[in-house]
Amino acid sequence: MHRSDEGLAFMLQYENIAWYENGQVRILDRRVYPTEVRFEICRTYGEVAQAIKDMVTQSAGPYTAAAMGMALAAWECRGKTEAEQRAFLEHAADVIAHARPTTAKRMEQITAGALKAADAALAAGSDVPQAIVDYTVRINNERYDKIAKIAALLVDTFPDNGTVMTQCFAETIVGQMLKECRRRGRTIRLFCPETRPFFQGARLTATVCHEMGFDTTVITDNMPAFVMQREKVDVFTSAADVICMDGHVVNKVGTFQIAICADRLGVPYYVTGAPDFNHPGIDSVHIELRDPEEVLYARGVRTAVQGVKGYYPAFDITPPELVKGVVTDRGIYLPRDLFHYYDGAEPNDGPVV
Amino acid sequence: MHRSDEGLAFMLQYENIAWYENGQVRILDRRVYPTEVRFEICRTYGEVAQAIKDMVTQSAGPYTAAAMGMALAAWECRGKTEAEQRAFLEHAADVIAHARPTTAKRMEQITAGALKAADAALAAGSDVPQAIVDYTVRINNERYDKIAKIAALLVDTFPDNGTVMTQCFAETIVGQMLKECRRRGRTIRLFCPETRPFFQGARLTATVCHEMGFDTTVITDNMPAFVMQREKVDVFTSAADVICMDGHVVNKVGTFQIAICADRLGVPYYVTGAPDFNHPGIDSVHIELRDPEEVLYARGVRTAVQGVKGYYPAFDITPPELVKGVVTDRGIYLPRDLFHYYDGAEPNDGPVV
Repeated sequence: MHRSDEGLAFMLQYENIAWYENGQVRILDRRVYPTEVRFEICRTYGEVAQAIKDMVTQSAGPYTAAAMGMALAAWECRGKTEAEQRAFLEHAADVIAHARPTTAKRMEQITAGALKAADAALAAGSDVPQAIVDYTVRINNERYDKIAKIAALLVDTFPDNGTVMTQCFAETIVGQMLKECRRRGRTIRLFCPETRPFFQGARLTATVCHEMGFDTTVITDNMPAFVMQREKVDVFTSAADVICMDGHVVNKVGTFQIAICADRLGVPYYVTGAPDFNHPGIDSVHIELRDPEEVLYARGVRTAVQGVKGYYPAFDITPPELVKGVVTDRGIYLPRDLFHYYDGAEPNDGPVV
Repeated sequence: MHRSDEGLAFMLQYENIAWYENGQVRILDRRVYPTEVRFEICRTYGEVAQAIKDMVTQSAGPYTAAAMGMALAAWECRGKTEAEQRAFLEHAADVIAHARPTTAKRMEQITAGALKAADAALAAGSDVPQAIVDYTVRINNERYDKIAKIAALLVDTFPDNGTVMTQCFAETIVGQMLKECRRRGRTIRLFCPETRPFFQGARLTATVCHEMGFDTTVITDNMPAFVMQREKVDVFTSAADVICMDGHVVNKVGTFQIAICADRLGVPYYVTGAPDFNHPGIDSVHIELRDPEEVLYARGVRTAVQGVKGYYPAFDITPPELVKGVVTDRGIYLPRDLFHYYDGAEPNDGPVV
């Protein structure tokens, strides 16, 4: 294990645990965590892609799973010629990156990085799966460093004894944000909408907040406006699956309507992450519509009679005018100034959140 | 049975079935309907009050349950002197009317009406429980007549092949509205937010819409804004637990934020019902905060770890500026013109919806 202790602690405790070892990738099944701790064992990269598609892991989880899936692919083709291994890995990269549509561009970056690491290992005659694992650890450590910077800037926006509303997931950023609060001796309380249909807010975000010792309240997804009105919410914050260069934010469905309510009720919305140079505007983002049946169940129990239809957009789009600031590792930007993020800097080669 | 066939059909099929007969009130348990059909059997008026408090029935259900609970109370005290019966019934009226705080004023009207019916029966020496049952049937038939008028006006606001978003419940009004659509040969499709924590939208509203033959889609409570943006919603409509004379609307939690989103996205919000002269403004309305634990479960399955808190406002408040029109049995009013509803007319003595 090469990860920094701090990163490791978050990764093991809260985040996707997606780890390659000895010809398999183990992925923590976040569809049932924390009431159940179960791992999905993938023995082929195809199974890794399927696990991503099935949302065994989500939020930042798929980025690690994708990279570890590439390590597994390298193991799968280990007996082949160098040219065959390259072809096999390129195909694996394509399959894994396109397991879900909305974040495909970011996933392509991850798998491209893994391919590069594999090429170098093949040229040097060294262990290819290990080289990809090393790459995964490196991009995760870079991510943790960026998130630590983001967390510090985000906490600057909280008043002491303030109230913060979250949306969905992103336990790394939530965890780092709360660690930063603790470091400064700053008390906050949190309201976490439960995030249907999979309850990531109730199951995952709220668990991190509570285990880190903060006053944590779960609400159902129809309550944010009432809570903002009655409970004096100071800041609404979320991570994002995509932040377009023009300031459109793609995140877990529900973010858009909470942002609309926040705007009306005078609560600033800060999104964390980095603008994605793959997406100059919203038109290049494909919003994933998942199996409609998934919304007709709650923790495995059917909620509607047969014949009623479901509808399941996994994400929604918040326009830049509802975003008070984009909190990045390089500062807080107004949505319209996001293009300055890349002033004199290379595009990121890994995901920020 | 004295109810009109039409009213009866709705009442039996969809609505609260709360019925007094032979010393007991049977209430359809809407917490589990339609996946399970179970009745709560109350043998004392205290059990009826408890069932209302526990939300065995809700929406318009408690009004019928309250009246039928009064019939049960009359049966309970049948052997006592006339004065004792009066005292017993007055106490019962108080207990039943205050089972839940937000609609207490309206409930007081119902139980007062039942007391009046009891007084007349006592004076005439006739059957007191039967007199209260007759009263209940009468106010329900009046309610159905009013709702038929409301439904006709509401349907006027729908374009043909239009899309309507509902909130929560009120199957009588939804049922009448759809019957009116059918009568006019008007096709609409419906989006029903599921309405956490008890899923009344998914379980009850959607069942009515589907069984009446309309294209019905259930969404989770974090999706209304996305659906309005992507699916061209023409009208958002809901019933109300209280409509204040100044146009504030108290309804199932979530209504407020859907109304905020509707306003921003250009979708008109029509609320159905009648202004309540007991509430000139919002200050006299007490928003019920229910057991916080209830939001931490979904159909009986725990969603959050122990130690995480819940928060459960049963209702929220939509201000008049978000309401396009109040659809009453006497016309559609702008919220600011609601006081005209009572021009030259007596206040209602029963609930409209």
